[in-house]
Amino acid sequence: MNEIKIFSPATVANVSCGFDVLGFCLDTIGDEMVIRKTAEKGVKITKIVGAELPYEPEKNVAGVAALAIMNAANPDFGIEIEIYKNIKPGSGVGSSSASASGAVWAINEFLGKPYNKQELVGFGMKGEALASGAEHADNVAPGIFGGFTLVKQLNPLKVVQLPTPSELYATIIHPQIEIKTSEARSILPKEVALKQAINQWANVGSFVSALYTDDYELLSDSLHDTIVEPHRSKLIPHYDKVKEAMLNAGALGAGISGSGPSIFSLCKGEAIAKKVAEAIVEVYKTTGIEFDVYVSKINAKGIRIINLK
Amino acid sequence: MNEIKIFSPATVANVSCGFDVLGFCLDTIGDEMVIRKTAEKGVKITKIVGAELPYEPEKNVAGVAALAIMNAANPDFGIEIEIYKNIKPGSGVGSSSASASGAVWAINEFLGKPYNKQELVGFGMKGEALASGAEHADNVAPGIFGGFTLVKQLNPLKVVQLPTPSELYATIIHPQIEIKTSEARSILPKEVALKQAINQWANVGSFVSALYTDDYELLSDSLHDTIVEPHRSKLIPHYDKVKEAMLNAGALGAGISGSGPSIFSLCKGEAIAKKVAEAIVEVYKTTGIEFDVYVSKINAKGIRIINLK
Repeated sequence: MNEIKIFSPATVANVSCGFDVLGFCLDTIGDEMVIRKTAEKGVKITKIVGAELPYEPEKNVAGVAALAIMNAANPDFGIEIEIYKNIKPGSGVGSSSASASGAVWAINEFLGKPYNKQELVGFGMKGEALASGAEHADNVAPGIFGGFTLVKQLNPLKVVQLPTPSELYATIIHPQIEIKTSEARSILPKEVALKQAINQWANVGSFVSALYTDDYELLSDSLHDTIVEPHRSKLIPHYDKVKEAMLNAGALGAGISGSGPSIFSLCKGEAIAKKVAEAIVEVYKTTGIEFDVYVSKINAKGIRIINLK
Repeated sequence: MNEIKIFSPATVANVSCGFDVLGFCLDTIGDEMVIRKTAEKGVKITKIVGAELPYEPEKNVAGVAALAIMNAANPDFGIEIEIYKNIKPGSGVGSSSASASGAVWAINEFLGKPYNKQELVGFGMKGEALASGAEHADNVAPGIFGGFTLVKQLNPLKVVQLPTPSELYATIIHPQIEIKTSEARSILPKEVALKQAINQWANVGSFVSALYTDDYELLSDSLHDTIVEPHRSKLIPHYDKVKEAMLNAGALGAGISGSGPSIFSLCKGEAIAKKVAEAIVEVYKTTGIEFDVYVSKINAKGIRIINLK
């Protein structure tokens, strides 16, 4: 094997109740990457299509993540990376994470898989740190593990893989406005009312239980966020209308994807997910803001190989 | 059936990470109650052994809970209650809850079981409200459901039953000092740092996952509380020493049971639970404070019938 082409999926972090902790993996939206073994040691980025991103590995999230795993493994070969971005940077569905995760995942294949998924998340986080200024794993983890993940802690890193109810779909709208992760972070309260925090951890607990028991009603009941959403939703034009339309069309729940501006919903079955998509197109098409809408099954596998050479 | 004798178990609320939300049911410590059908309508408490408690139903937690279910069902018979307290009031292992839960559970048997477990918790909470000034369900729920429970919300009440890993035991020490629930409540912070709250909900999520997957290591890793324990542990003499001794003897985790003063630990297997018991006896026997130590398997069934007449 000298070349591997992969699909590195978009991901949704936070998932309403699980701020900084929960995430899930999408299936119909993601970047493609070609990773090639080279005789010359080191990491090179040779092609970037679909976004204006730096080619210097030290300034590119995929490059930084690739350097982290290559430096740890120190193999007698080098790596060339081509990135075909389909996930727009700044969309809130894990664009930087997809590049970072894809690079480390593919390099691990070339190395003979010495690292487990959690260790790969650790390398991927190095790329995320470049993008957002802080190491976080709530997009990298679902990309590499697939399905739903819970980042229990960062130091030392501990990722818990959660089950994926088989009928679960996501519908997502990406309004093409820019929200910086740093800005979305700075408007968060430093302190929260104990009462609200209790509600939130009750919801995280019941959400996790619902995933194990395929309890869509409980899952729906758990998808609430009174802590982060009230602040961040103000940065997203027409947020309340979109959320209302999603719920009215039958979504189990809806919330901000990552730090926005994308808005996600979870739905039972593809038919409802498509109805939700139609409803939000109706809401957004009159706003004058460019947008994309995606319908995706939850991707229980994560990153996948497209072909090998 | 004219008479039913039941065992109504002690329970542990909060369980470190799950303040106000998680609870579990014990097996070797609990009250006994005899509930008798009477021709005369209404609720009477005819005998209380083991504690000084009021006989007027309106002033007794079992009486208040019994009145709640009897008023809702309005049967053409009445109820007589005998209470044999083995759980000391104010111990922090759900003494009032055991009386309230036992009464409604037994009355439901006489009524022909018209109410499901969650509805019984609702009636039991009325008794709890008399004891603590607020309706809460984190002891009533594990008593009635058995095993581990998560009180997702109080209004409307929603209880999630969680699985019970089969090798799980609890070791508990009850130092015989008095802590009022109201006092234990008043020292809590009204606000908590967002960062700490995130850690707490990550732990609740991973704790719930660990119960589903019998992952004792993850369960151990999740049993932390940086929000309530630092405040309430000050009210419990020698708390830190006891906790340290529990962990050193092999406990998976340890924390305050309910609002204290009891301290609980969870252990994998009876042998370790007994070692933990020995270790805490060593710590406490030199303090001059009276205490009881209990070792119990987690009781997956909850309240049980001792005999019927």
